[in-house]
Parts: sequence; structure tokens; C-alpha cells
Amino acid sequence: MRCNALMYGDFTLASGKKSEYYIDIKKASTDPYVLETIADEMAREIQLRGLEVDKIAGVVLGSIPLAVALSLRTKIPYIMVRREKKDHGTQKMIEGSLAAGEKVLMVEDVVTSAGSVLEAIGIVRAAGGAVSEVLCVVNRQEGGEQKLNDIGVRLSALVTAEDILRK
Amino acid sequence: MRCNALMYGDFTLASGKKSEYYIDIKKASTDPYVLETIADEMAREIQLRGLEVDKIAGVVLGSIPLAVALSLRTKIPYIMVRREKKDHGTQKMIEGSLAAGEKVLMVEDVVTSAGSVLEAIGIVRAAGGAVSEVLCVVNRQEGGEQKLNDIGVRLSALVTAEDILRK
Repeated sequence: MRCNALMYGDFTLASGKKSEYYIDIKKASTDPYVLETIADEMAREIQLRGLEVDKIAGVVLGSIPLAVALSLRTKIPYIMVRREKKDHGTQKMIEGSLAAGEKVLMVEDVVTSAGSVLEAIGIVRAAGGAVSEVLCVVNRQEGGEQKLNDIGVRLSALVTAEDILRK
Repeated sequence: MRCNALMYGDFTLASGKKSEYYIDIKKASTDPYVLETIADEMAREIQLRGLEVDKIAGVVLGSIPLAVALSLRTKIPYIMVRREKKDHGTQKMIEGSLAAGEKVLMVEDVVTSAGSVLEAIGIVRAAGGAVSEVLCVVNRQEGGEQKLNDIGVRLSALVTAEDILRK
């Protein structure tokens, strides 16, 4: 990818953990060329694995650009899932239409412990969506995959921590 | 547009005002075909008017899909502007990079009184961005344009209330 979103060094993550690398995925995904590349790779993954997808779902805010780009690329409609507590009574947890039983593919930028996407899956399932797949850009391989597997969801990633640290 | 996002009838808007029509723009913009059409029209508008744009800006959450789609279409990078009060100290008001003096085109779904985009323009200007243009899908022609003009910003719309009510 032609961007400086991946940096090696000594970093302290939001969680307080130390890391040898840091990925500024928001920086990456506001570059249309990077975003297009990610969407192309994700579309290829869907096709290669023969996934049936009725709706693509992105979690507000970081994964919305991925969901939109993948939707434009595949022509599968998307929904936006809000995790935050509602400020006003009128804010819906899900924007976009979702019918009961529809197969929903969750897309995420970075999966670390998967807290964000786990919460979003709960919201989508409560609304009647069927979720069995999460597709992320980076799997930091820090326990998220196991937690997803525990609720019957498979995680695929374009890049893993192992890929990155192998350099 | 091939969607049912425009409805005629007697509607009461969020503001309490009555309206003869209602546009469910979120429904429209989660359809990739509609979103693509909007992005195509917006890109044509930029070209026709010879606008110089360094960054496209969308306001969270409703206008992010438009900003992303227009960015992918034009290959101009985008930024995301948060209006809400920050829940955590770490949340930035602007996601994506913005350098001082960069020309920023704000995109919006529906402009009514322009409150949302006015607030976002204040945030972008405070961060050093130069804003003189807002491009929206629908201008409801309810005072927003004048308020924007008052702060030196021009409003263009793909569709106006006049177009819609003329049927």
C-alpha cells in the first residue's frame, strides 16, 4: 500500500499495551487509493471464499469508509452500526435497512481484542441479522479471533500481526 | 434515482415544520447505486464549476458515505468532521489529515437551516481549512443558503425543494 500508515518502533496502544508497530488505519482509509485497494482485496476475499452477503455492516465511525467502499465495489448495500449510547432518543443503533434473516458481513479496520465488533454483532443479531463472518484489514492477533469464534463468527484479515512483524 | 427515498404526502419534520415531501436520504445513500449516482453528479459539479478542492469534508454520520463515495470517484482525499461533544478526551473533532490553508469542499445530504454544516465549517476553519463551498444533495430552501452566504460560503445542490415540488 502506498501510504505511511504502518510505522515500526516502540508504541503504547490505547489499551496501555506496548507494541512494536503502529497502524494509523484512519490515516490510511482517508486516502482514496488506499481505500480502493482495501475494497478490492476485500471483494476478492468475498469471491474467493464464496461468501453469501446480503448486507455489509460497518461500525461507526472507523469502519464506515470501508463499508461504503466495499458496497460501491460489490454493489451490496451496507448498514451502519452505532455502538455509543444514544444522545437523543431519535438516534437509531442501525442506519440502513436490515430484514430478518439477512446475511450480514461485518467489516472492521483493526481487530485487537474485538470488543468493538463483538458489541456491534450483538446489535445486528438483536435486529434479526445473521452474522457469521467478520472481515478486517488488520488482525492484531491479540485474542479477538477466539472471542469471535466463541460466538460462532469467523474472522478473516487482509493482514495479520504475524505478516507485519515478519517484515 | 432508482429508489424510494422521495415520498410525497403530509409530513412533520424533525424541526416540527410541516412538509409536502420527505426525503429519506439515509435510505438512499445506503444503496450503492444511488450513492454512486450522487457521487457522479457531485464530481460533475466540481468539474463544471472548476472548483479547486484539496480535501472533501463530510459531517458525521449522515454525510460520511457521500464524502467517501466522492473521494473514491475523484481521488481527492476526505476528512470526517464530528459535531457532537466529545465523549472521551481522545476523540478528535476531525479525522483525516488537514493542512493549514487547504481548500475544503463540504458535502452534505440535506440542507434545511444549515445548522449542522455551519457548525462543521466552524470546526474546519478553526483547524486552518479554507471553506467557501458546500455541495449538497438536497437544498430544502429553508434559510440555510442565506446563512451560509453570510459567512462567505456558497451552497450548490443537486436538487432543490423547488425541483421536487414542481414534480
